[in-house]
Amino acid sequence: MRSASTRTSNRIELQVDLNYEVAAPGADFIFNVHAARTPSQSLSGERLVLSPAVESQTHTDPATGNRYLRVHAAPGTLALSYAVTVDLTHRHCDPAQLEEVPIDRLPPELLEYLYPSRYCQSDRLLTLASNAFGTLKPGYGRVQAIRDWVNGHVKFTSNSSNTNTSALDTLIDQVGVCRDFAHLMIALCRAMNIPARYATGTDYGADVALGPPDFQAYVEVYLGDSWYIFDPSGTAIPMGFVRFGTGRDAADVAFATMFGSVRSHRPTVRALAVEDAAQGLVRPHHCADALSTDSGPTRAPGS
Amino acid sequence: MRSASTRTSNRIELQVDLNYEVAAPGADFIFNVHAARTPSQSLSGERLVLSPAVESQTHTDPATGNRYLRVHAAPGTLALSYAVTVDLTHRHCDPAQLEEVPIDRLPPELLEYLYPSRYCQSDRLLTLASNAFGTLKPGYGRVQAIRDWVNGHVKFTSNSSNTNTSALDTLIDQVGVCRDFAHLMIALCRAMNIPARYATGTDYGADVALGPPDFQAYVEVYLGDSWYIFDPSGTAIPMGFVRFGTGRDAADVAFATMFGSVRSHRPTVRALAVEDAAQGLVRPHHCADALSTDSGPTRAPGS
Amino acid sequence: MRSASTRTSNRIELQVDLNYEVAAPGADFIFNVHAARTPSQSLSGERLVLSPAVESQTHTDPATGNRYLRVHAAPGTLALSYAVTVDLTHRHCDPAQLEEVPIDRLPPELLEYLYPSRYCQSDRLLTLASNAFGTLKPGYGRVQAIRDWVNGHVKFTSNSSNTNTSALDTLIDQVGVCRDFAHLMIALCRAMNIPARYATGTDYGADVALGPPDFQAYVEVYLGDSWYIFDPSGTAIPMGFVRFGTGRDAADVAFATMFGSVRSHRPTVRALAVEDAAQGLVRPHHCADALSTDSGPTRAPGS
Amino acid sequence: MRSASTRTSNRIELQVDLNYEVAAPGADFIFNVHAARTPSQSLSGERLVLSPAVESQTHTDPATGNRYLRVHAAPGTLALSYAVTVDLTHRHCDPAQLEEVPIDRLPPELLEYLYPSRYCQSDRLLTLASNAFGTLKPGYGRVQAIRDWVNGHVKFTSNSSNTNTSALDTLIDQVGVCRDFAHLMIALCRAMNIPARYATGTDYGADVALGPPDFQAYVEVYLGDSWYIFDPSGTAIPMGFVRFGTGRDAADVAFATMFGSVRSHRPTVRALAVEDAAQGLVRPHHCADALSTDSGPTRAPGS
Repeated sequence: MRSASTRTSNRIELQVDLNYEVAAPGADFIFNVHAARTPSQSLSGERLVLSPAVESQTHTDPATGNRYLRVHAAPGTLALSYAVTVDLTHRHCDPAQLEEVPIDRLPPELLEYLYPSRYCQSDRLLTLASNAFGTLKPGYGRVQAIRDWVNGHVKFTSNSSNTNTSALDTLIDQVGVCRDFAHLMIALCRAMNIPARYATGTDYGADVALGPPDFQAYVEVYLGDSWYIFDPSGTAIPMGFVRFGTGRDAADVAFATMFGSVRSHRPTVRALAVEDAAQGLVRPHHCADALSTDSGPTRAPGS
Repeated sequence: MRSASTRTSNRIELQVDLNYEVAAPGADFIFNVHAARTPSQSLSGERLVLSPAVESQTHTDPATGNRYLRVHAAPGTLALSYAVTVDLTHRHCDPAQLEEVPIDRLPPELLEYLYPSRYCQSDRLLTLASNAFGTLKPGYGRVQAIRDWVNGHVKFTSNSSNTNTSALDTLIDQVGVCRDFAHLMIALCRAMNIPARYATGTDYGADVALGPPDFQAYVEVYLGDSWYIFDPSGTAIPMGFVRFGTGRDAADVAFATMFGSVRSHRPTVRALAVEDAAQGLVRPHHCADALSTDSGPTRAPGS
Repeated sequence: MRSASTRTSNRIELQVDLNYEVAAPGADFIFNVHAARTPSQSLSGERLVLSPAVESQTHTDPATGNRYLRVHAAPGTLALSYAVTVDLTHRHCDPAQLEEVPIDRLPPELLEYLYPSRYCQSDRLLTLASNAFGTLKPGYGRVQAIRDWVNGHVKFTSNSSNTNTSALDTLIDQVGVCRDFAHLMIALCRAMNIPARYATGTDYGADVALGPPDFQAYVEVYLGDSWYIFDPSGTAIPMGFVRFGTGRDAADVAFATMFGSVRSHRPTVRALAVEDAAQGLVRPHHCADALSTDSGPTRAPGS
Repeated sequence: MRSASTRTSNRIELQVDLNYEVAAPGADFIFNVHAARTPSQSLSGERLVLSPAVESQTHTDPATGNRYLRVHAAPGTLALSYAVTVDLTHRHCDPAQLEEVPIDRLPPELLEYLYPSRYCQSDRLLTLASNAFGTLKPGYGRVQAIRDWVNGHVKFTSNSSNTNTSALDTLIDQVGVCRDFAHLMIALCRAMNIPARYATGTDYGADVALGPPDFQAYVEVYLGDSWYIFDPSGTAIPMGFVRFGTGRDAADVAFATMFGSVRSHRPTVRALAVEDAAQGLVRPHHCADALSTDSGPTRAPGS
């Protein structure tokens, strides 16, 4: 199967600007807005500026590669400006070749992605998922059916949810934003014993009618021997997703987790694709292949 | 339409036995186990015995006809034994003739059956109901589709729910008993602006594989100019339902609402049909007609 | 006890303006903004204008006296303008004289106010309420302790809740508006077997720092032989509450229940007190007495 | 501070027996019943037998030291029998010396223990926790106050909860078992920005009136530079806890996570203390010291 895969290369120039007003006596921030450094995602020209130039600490999680920036900010304004050029490589696979992995053959590091988490209460959805998807042929096609079910049942509606909204809420209310689509799809995959995780990036290619460019939440599902990308909200072009972080759900990889009294301005996000045939760089586009940028925990880099 | 209806008559001999152990300092009970007296349900040979012979008060709610028995019991055992012979008359209508009633033409007494209640949180289900049923042709057929949807999504499972379980829980967990099927169907009807109420009776005709004879919860929906009976759990024979009470949900018409520390034994319920061709009494049976025993608030008795 | 009560009289000039934009294909409204006509609340100069002058139906619920106005509106704007002069009479009682009524001595019409409802899930709060209030001396003082507990635990915060928010949410989140304070207090009273209901009016006397004059939700609790007024949000002056409606919770007496796609503008509410010593009219003011405007279902009017 | 600590040694002989009946087509199990191997917990005489002798895989999580056993079982019975002798060493510290760690000084590996998880929805409890504990002096004493608050508000009641029960449920219902006490305490600590995690062991010293010996869930909170043990249920003797696993909540470290249709028999757990003054082994006992068996991620083993 692996030999049948092909690769495409994309380049995204990314710019993120965040602005806050911090009340007394100050606040702590944990940012996850650095592009991850992975075998499929190489970075150049990276620059992060904090204003004022407060002290900060960075930390890369060895299990996920997520890069966290921790800042203790005094009262007043805080601005974060981040720019980077990201070269992405996607492995393309034939969906028909991708099988679900039996629990007893999963890499042990992946078991946690079978368990329920704060916003993905898969333990409540075992019967529902079994009723809806239990008779489908296992594999990528069944995961795609879960993705389509979520996409068909939930209506994208700006400002229809908040940071407490969970998969159960979205199942009932049937409205949400990309975060909510992702949580519901993850919960349903886990309820079917399929490892699924939450990924964050930018909404490259999203219709401007949905609002200005923004962060994006999407889903990765482990099939065969890699994590494959799904976009249950259907709002963007997955090939253009620059990965910030992956985690069990939004609790792990919020672009900014704040402790203290903080007023947030709307983030400014810009992701531009560089197309250059001479360098083999294609513009991200919709495609029917299964796309992966992460071959999972048991693979050597680049395999 | 009314002229096209026909009627059938049934006779049920009903026996209910309830047994409790009341802890100090005593407890209050509100029972709703008397068969209702309605134009379609006449009673004979009624007998209710409390042991010990404690003082009690009865009250008939003028709006619904529900008969409540209030008892303050001292510590010790309390037994209630009730027997009655019930003559039921069902009006049979052609489902194709029964239309939904626009909100501005509903009898005002019915508006409360459009509103959410404790166990039927229709306010959360507006989008889901509209997505699932919004394009169906209005009328009895659409209500039947809601009933079938609930019946198809929820699996009858003894002891799978408790007195706190609501329609939202049942929607998520997809298991329940007759009470839970009824709450979910009611919530979905109200979310479609169709008046629906909770009705209680006995599970005449239920498969003994589901357990010994028991109380039954079912649904009545207002269509045309009457309330029509639906059994979303599909466990019993609606024509054999003796009505105890109707209300917004189980909070209104529990067969026993208890205040205090009480241990309950399993109720004993027996409902036997009397078949007698000479008297025109048929045995309750499944049928495809729309069945009504209540022509709603604006009709004179017997109309 | 009754002989010890005194009365005060107030006059409120009330003006309510509601404005909506109705999308195709039109919408239904059930308004509950008419001041109730009760022995304690007499009306003069009442005027209600709908623009455009659409057909409407009014209905007074015999059990509660609530006045409902039903309107089917075509697409476009809908404006409702209501004005009335209300003469209020409050019976003042000594809180120390007011006792809780045992369940077996409650008027049967009040039993429903012991049961859980959509936004007041008292069935979940039996243990919490018993732990917090079970050892207090029964009576008005215990109800006041429940009111004070809610007032102390919940922080009034504009726009912190929505129409799905229930007492359980407010218990957890500890923020809300007057509606949420009322639902939580009602749920806790019912969990203690004390009949409690939801009442709506206007926020006479509210601090303008909380926003412009608005509708108000408050609580009535049945003690002795009457319903007594409590304002758990503590934002207004109870003696100035003009009653629109009472019900089990906000589901019954929303000032506007809407069916269809409607955009609402912020309501405009004005409630001015007329002070006139010659006529015995006092300005509503805070006082330590127990206040009642409703002597319950078993009293003849005016008793 | 570290120099002021003392140590005690205990020895526990542990025996765990689990029995299951697996339905067709078989089931997967992930067990977490091996005692962890840590600098403070050394093992001897370890023996684990599966009957039938099915193939199994073990995996030790590098971050937590949790040992997982994965089994794919065919239909029929499955028995697991585990025995081990565990030597425990507890570091005893003076509670008055233990301070909360500011977020910007926490080891980065601990940040996840600030975040909400499936059963510990701390994101909903920020206001409640701040209201209840915000004015207390930070440090071990405040954590003890949170522990006491949970212990005082929740009543230990066998079989009062299930595997879906979360901290929010326990906050409302105020009943639970050790798992529920732990989840609520963890959620409240995290809501105060104090890292807290879920730990599993055996209920050494529990009153037999609560039932036969069983697994136990308890809490570890990071203060100063170590994780300290708390037992919010108050049912057992913390010094006798043999640690199986630690995680964000029960989703991570259930003693048995099952995939498939399985009937479980009640686990048999036996934990006997060996007292031997000559070897310096004391019997586990209640004490007022802060107890730690884990000095956190930044310490070398044994420090």
